[in-house]
Amino acid sequence: MSDKNVPYKTYLTEEELPKKWLNIKGFMKDKPAPLINPATREACTKKELCEVFCEELAEQELNATDKFIDIPKPITDFYKLYRPSPLVRAYGLEKYLDTPAEIYYKFEGNNTSGSHKLNSAAAQIYYAKKQGLKAVTTETGAGQWGTALAMAGAYFGMPVKVYMVKVSYEQKPFRRNVMNVYGASVVSSPSQTTEAGRKILAEHLDTNGSLGCAISEAVEAAVTDPAHGTRYVLGSVLDQVLLHQSVIGLETQTALEKIGRKPDIIVGCAGGGSNLGGLIAPFMAEKLEGKANPRVIAVEPASCPSLTRGQYRYDFCDTGKITPLAKMYTLGCDFIPAANHAGGLRYHGMSPILSKLYDDRLIEATSYTQTAVFDAAVTFARIEGTLPAPESSHAIKGAIDAALECKAKGEKKVIVFGLTGTGYFDLKAYDEFLSGKMTDRIPTDKEIGI
Amino acid sequence: MSDKNVPYKTYLTEEELPKKWLNIKGFMKDKPAPLINPATREACTKKELCEVFCEELAEQELNATDKFIDIPKPITDFYKLYRPSPLVRAYGLEKYLDTPAEIYYKFEGNNTSGSHKLNSAAAQIYYAKKQGLKAVTTETGAGQWGTALAMAGAYFGMPVKVYMVKVSYEQKPFRRNVMNVYGASVVSSPSQTTEAGRKILAEHLDTNGSLGCAISEAVEAAVTDPAHGTRYVLGSVLDQVLLHQSVIGLETQTALEKIGRKPDIIVGCAGGGSNLGGLIAPFMAEKLEGKANPRVIAVEPASCPSLTRGQYRYDFCDTGKITPLAKMYTLGCDFIPAANHAGGLRYHGMSPILSKLYDDRLIEATSYTQTAVFDAAVTFARIEGTLPAPESSHAIKGAIDAALECKAKGEKKVIVFGLTGTGYFDLKAYDEFLSGKMTDRIPTDKEIGI
Repeated sequence: MSDKNVPYKTYLTEEELPKKWLNIKGFMKDKPAPLINPATREACTKKELCEVFCEELAEQELNATDKFIDIPKPITDFYKLYRPSPLVRAYGLEKYLDTPAEIYYKFEGNNTSGSHKLNSAAAQIYYAKKQGLKAVTTETGAGQWGTALAMAGAYFGMPVKVYMVKVSYEQKPFRRNVMNVYGASVVSSPSQTTEAGRKILAEHLDTNGSLGCAISEAVEAAVTDPAHGTRYVLGSVLDQVLLHQSVIGLETQTALEKIGRKPDIIVGCAGGGSNLGGLIAPFMAEKLEGKANPRVIAVEPASCPSLTRGQYRYDFCDTGKITPLAKMYTLGCDFIPAANHAGGLRYHGMSPILSKLYDDRLIEATSYTQTAVFDAAVTFARIEGTLPAPESSHAIKGAIDAALECKAKGEKKVIVFGLTGTGYFDLKAYDEFLSGKMTDRIPTDKEIGI
Repeated sequence: MSDKNVPYKTYLTEEELPKKWLNIKGFMKDKPAPLINPATREACTKKELCEVFCEELAEQELNATDKFIDIPKPITDFYKLYRPSPLVRAYGLEKYLDTPAEIYYKFEGNNTSGSHKLNSAAAQIYYAKKQGLKAVTTETGAGQWGTALAMAGAYFGMPVKVYMVKVSYEQKPFRRNVMNVYGASVVSSPSQTTEAGRKILAEHLDTNGSLGCAISEAVEAAVTDPAHGTRYVLGSVLDQVLLHQSVIGLETQTALEKIGRKPDIIVGCAGGGSNLGGLIAPFMAEKLEGKANPRVIAVEPASCPSLTRGQYRYDFCDTGKITPLAKMYTLGCDFIPAANHAGGLRYHGMSPILSKLYDDRLIEATSYTQTAVFDAAVTFARIEGTLPAPESSHAIKGAIDAALECKAKGEKKVIVFGLTGTGYFDLKAYDEFLSGKMTDRIPTDKEIGI
């Protein structure tokens, strides 16, 4: 390792920004199992996917051979509004932990949506516009994906309709207001605008809604558009999303090269897998090619432990069972994390690509309780300045533990983690933690179907 | 002007960051009038100021000769956590306005406090720590200054007590929560902890509080500390604050040099004046030295028009009349902006330095109604991505009008404006605007004492 002096923050120049996305599947000899149509029990065809997704995205979803895919110029132009994101040397955290390790984080929160989600939102909106579609639909829980999609929609001139889980719609009005600023239409889900919504409301008028129901409404609204000018878009899990998010890892790789470093340990939080899949993309490619062998650690909440306690099998991507079946680590599509869980990452499954890499022992996984995660978040905020999102804080906790392991062993390793976003809209959870009211709830074996 | 290709965002390297602050007073032949002690009617002495402020800050407040002042290394280290801020070319806005002008903005919102306030918070906390003080007190209205101070306090290990105006304390719990994350103690003002607070509560138990009252409580808490280990800190208006904020302008100057540009028009919002004073610092220095002659436009709200409709005279800095007298443009220290005003910049007076420059015709000023400002804010958000703070949006509106003037005249000028912060905590106001419920209220001549 060189002794080159490393700045607090490394930014790429505009010329150094990625011009191609990296397709992990193109580097995998053993490919992930295909999506399956639950009706036919056959692999989904492009034609079938095109009913729900726009064409170029369906193409990307199925593309398992190309190693790189050109990023269209309108998307790289959009990326320039908020990228490059900085690679930050966490000097303060290193000193606080008194570790010989070097700790870096790639910070994706410096945009109004507050997270990395914008990287895929831009791509999905652009392709929808290019195809001449009239609108896209999606669901949102906490609201980061919906906000990102609204921002991209405003920029490219594509109407966006967001089905927002009722409890979030009512308790997070600010999230809804941001989407409105960017011109998106936001509907509380379940709603009277879809058959799925009306059915649930007829049975449970007082329901708080759920992500599963919101997905059902968004998909229904897309596929039942009589003029067929609407498609559904999704912010995580899918292979296409990991493809778009590879800009995170590609920028990280170039930044590390500029400061003369190679990652020994890469840590990312894992809900649906979009951030971790994007962060590790070029490093996993090197690992698959035998050129490097970094440890990769996926960090998930103990309350929703799909990798660490789930089963690797075909399952629905949604609770409503209307999507294709994906082979992935899953807690079962009926699994609902404990209501007291404040830290995001509430998805029952895991990206099929990451699931395959985990099954092939190319990725490790660990889980933490939310109080341990918030403790790491507050420590980080006070030392490094930035208020992290609860989701991102899982990676902070993972990186801290990796750095302490280096300290115990006297190893001067290079640790890189993904700081996916900011915690501006999670302050109620921070307040619960600081006032000692936050509790942990780990699902029983029975609850996750073991 | 060179035809050099300008990137969307220009970042300085760590080596290019300012190592000295620029003291505008050092460049002024006609100095601003001194602060006056209302008891003695004489200019405040350093000894008097040291009762309230820490020593080095009192020294900076009175320093009218040095052109540059070294930034201590612990402060430049702190700045590296969130600086440099980018100088952004507003390509999208230029295209939307179809103007021959080039529009740039210096974006100060990429830190958790969400604004430029952190630049002075870091300095004030550092000097308090260096002096061995045990705590600092301050007041906060909307909460940006309190958040910035809490962040700096957490980093340097200095306890921070924030008197937060009761109506904000209750209506903006998230702002309070952020300060708690950074370990600050936040008190709803008026409180039972000070004589000033008790007196107001005895007379008006149901009061919403006011900035004037919160200042009184914060100053009282500082000066009555029996061990005399506490001082009061302030986030705007003062000369020392403009000094610290000069990093904004110095970075802007270096970034413009890197891309081969000189500013023709500089636009900033003006409440107490900290942002505008910092942004223009090196350019005003050149103007005072006859080396350049950019137009400088201060933009203020029509609801609180201190420069455009105020009087240039000695007045108290606070509503409670416990501070020194400053010679400044003022609407009268009893002036309270209309309650319906959502856009910040609610201060009755203006920085003495900026007041003097305005009186000397070195700065222009203009004002806008809040609905016009929010209209510009929404346009900007949709085109440029970032959700601006209402305060910053005054500058956006000013820059748009300057660019349209260039269009009318066919002039290819370089416009630079300050985007001081983000609007995450102002979404209620955005919602009011979008739903058509926002109204404008311009004070009558009688209300501002004409």
